[in-house]
Amino acid sequence: MNSSPVGLHRVLEPPGVLPQAARRLDPDPRIREDEVRVRLERLNLDAASYRQLHTAHDGDPDAIRAEVLQIIRTRGKMHNPVTGSGGMLIGVVDEVGPRSPLGLTPGMRIATLVSLTLTPLHVEDDLRRWDGRGEQVPAEGHAILFARSIAAELPADLPAGLSLAVMDVCGAPALTHGVVAARTAPVVAVIGAAGKSGSLALAAARRAGAARTIGVVPFEAEAARLRAAGLADDVVIADARDPIALAGAVGAPADVTVVCVDVPGCEHGAILATAAGGTIVFFSMATSFSAAALGAEGLAADVTMLIGNGYAPGHAQMALDLLRTEPGVAKIFKERVEE
Amino acid sequence: MNSSPVGLHRVLEPPGVLPQAARRLDPDPRIREDEVRVRLERLNLDAASYRQLHTAHDGDPDAIRAEVLQIIRTRGKMHNPVTGSGGMLIGVVDEVGPRSPLGLTPGMRIATLVSLTLTPLHVEDDLRRWDGRGEQVPAEGHAILFARSIAAELPADLPAGLSLAVMDVCGAPALTHGVVAARTAPVVAVIGAAGKSGSLALAAARRAGAARTIGVVPFEAEAARLRAAGLADDVVIADARDPIALAGAVGAPADVTVVCVDVPGCEHGAILATAAGGTIVFFSMATSFSAAALGAEGLAADVTMLIGNGYAPGHAQMALDLLRTEPGVAKIFKERVEE
Repeated sequence: MNSSPVGLHRVLEPPGVLPQAARRLDPDPRIREDEVRVRLERLNLDAASYRQLHTAHDGDPDAIRAEVLQIIRTRGKMHNPVTGSGGMLIGVVDEVGPRSPLGLTPGMRIATLVSLTLTPLHVEDDLRRWDGRGEQVPAEGHAILFARSIAAELPADLPAGLSLAVMDVCGAPALTHGVVAARTAPVVAVIGAAGKSGSLALAAARRAGAARTIGVVPFEAEAARLRAAGLADDVVIADARDPIALAGAVGAPADVTVVCVDVPGCEHGAILATAAGGTIVFFSMATSFSAAALGAEGLAADVTMLIGNGYAPGHAQMALDLLRTEPGVAKIFKERVEE
Repeated sequence: MNSSPVGLHRVLEPPGVLPQAARRLDPDPRIREDEVRVRLERLNLDAASYRQLHTAHDGDPDAIRAEVLQIIRTRGKMHNPVTGSGGMLIGVVDEVGPRSPLGLTPGMRIATLVSLTLTPLHVEDDLRRWDGRGEQVPAEGHAILFARSIAAELPADLPAGLSLAVMDVCGAPALTHGVVAARTAPVVAVIGAAGKSGSLALAAARRAGAARTIGVVPFEAEAARLRAAGLADDVVIADARDPIALAGAVGAPADVTVVCVDVPGCEHGAILATAAGGTIVFFSMATSFSAAALGAEGLAADVTMLIGNGYAPGHAQMALDLLRTEPGVAKIFKERVEE
């Protein structure tokens, strides 16, 4: 059977689009040679998606459950048509095609690191174990992974919730490590440094050979949290949306600036805080492409600006390793996951 | 006098923001030690700005002129409050502060390469030589350049219109050259290759050592134009918004992909058309940050994605040099400027 590494053969309509853009996918349990079938354990709905469903149904749990079921049955994937978002899933590997490159074996307990919006999904239990009151959805059924999907084994030594929280942001430390390691002893500033992706980016920067790390946070409580974690050489307070304040707080411009704060309007401050010849990595989904491009031009800033790619080879393992070996990262994650 | 390289001292309100974000700038003709004063010759209004003014005033040239004057007098800069855009200017250097790093001398005829939205501007002739019927505005008065502004001398050997068209997109060949030169004989695909930035990017890629260049265009007339220019080793036709078609047309994935086509929805195609370990440079202002970031993650694509920075040191000179020495580039620009 001809198979596509990105799952084109699973697209039922409209033909020719990528699975994420499809209205409907085929969740047939029979796998192709490069596919993997996973037995479902739990869906983790995207927060924005659950919030929309909750609002649309006035919080009625039965109505919310009915709509999630309806979406999965109609689309062959959990792709909220209003928010456009999905989530991720936890399950156990059931069958692995002989040509699958994912390195999975039957029995492994995994989390998928690609969105549910592109993952063929079939539910068999009417989601009856879900009370409809939260984003965690116990489920029976199966999902299909393509050759170019991403999945990571859930470590036995960590609670599943903690592993998922780490995997959710594991692109940030991987890319930060690569950018920092490509330079000689750079100064690295992380904006939004006391959050999940920020703390991992700081730890990755130090491990990759940063000469000095600067953690920028918005107020004193976050500063105290970051100082207690010991992940940054300097902790400074600034509103990242105020370019002058941000650049002033960072001081001498950084060689590498990593933006992890999910509020709009941080582009100009990041540009001003970065030295000529430096690199800025934007991990915030609130980043405006045009504000970054035009801002750098308007400031005559000779900086390299990277779109934070959520994928890099080995990213989940690197992030889990940082969680295990850096007490400061573990401390911040435990606080954040319990919040 | 204390002076700021980005012009903070020229911001009248609100205090503390960058000149581009300011409601009002101070166009005082007395320059600081690192500033330059330019005698105006012509303003080139941004196309979107002129279109908005034209529509708002039903094409009445006197009303359009009156509003442009009103904007400049009120704001101290030509910053259209509706479109948020400005334009650029041509003028002659009048006075250069002793600490200006721009390398300008009095009498030089220059174009500013930073937006009018951040350039202090004062008009003395009520724009009476402008008929209000086009984007080219003859003007008397002055403008101020900061230490971090960008200006380029207008070459004596080229028509001003041609030089301006080149300078408008000169960030593309500069960044493309840098990315290509950092690799060993890469295959380079340029999407939107028969346009101004695309043709310059192709020429820069070849000069920087590309093993092979692929020009992607949307239809046969553009393909014929690009083949006649001789700038690409291969010319292929594809709708850049169709990921499967685009990747199919490019064939074996490129090491470097440069996106120069100003339509939304080209992110996934560019990602699919790029090899693992490759680099994508997005120059289109229609690029969606989140579509690029989530698309790469969803496709498990190990690619580096760059936000096209309109500034790089020496960018205008490099682009003008390509225009002078590559007959294919000159041919495309002459056709485009006359259109």
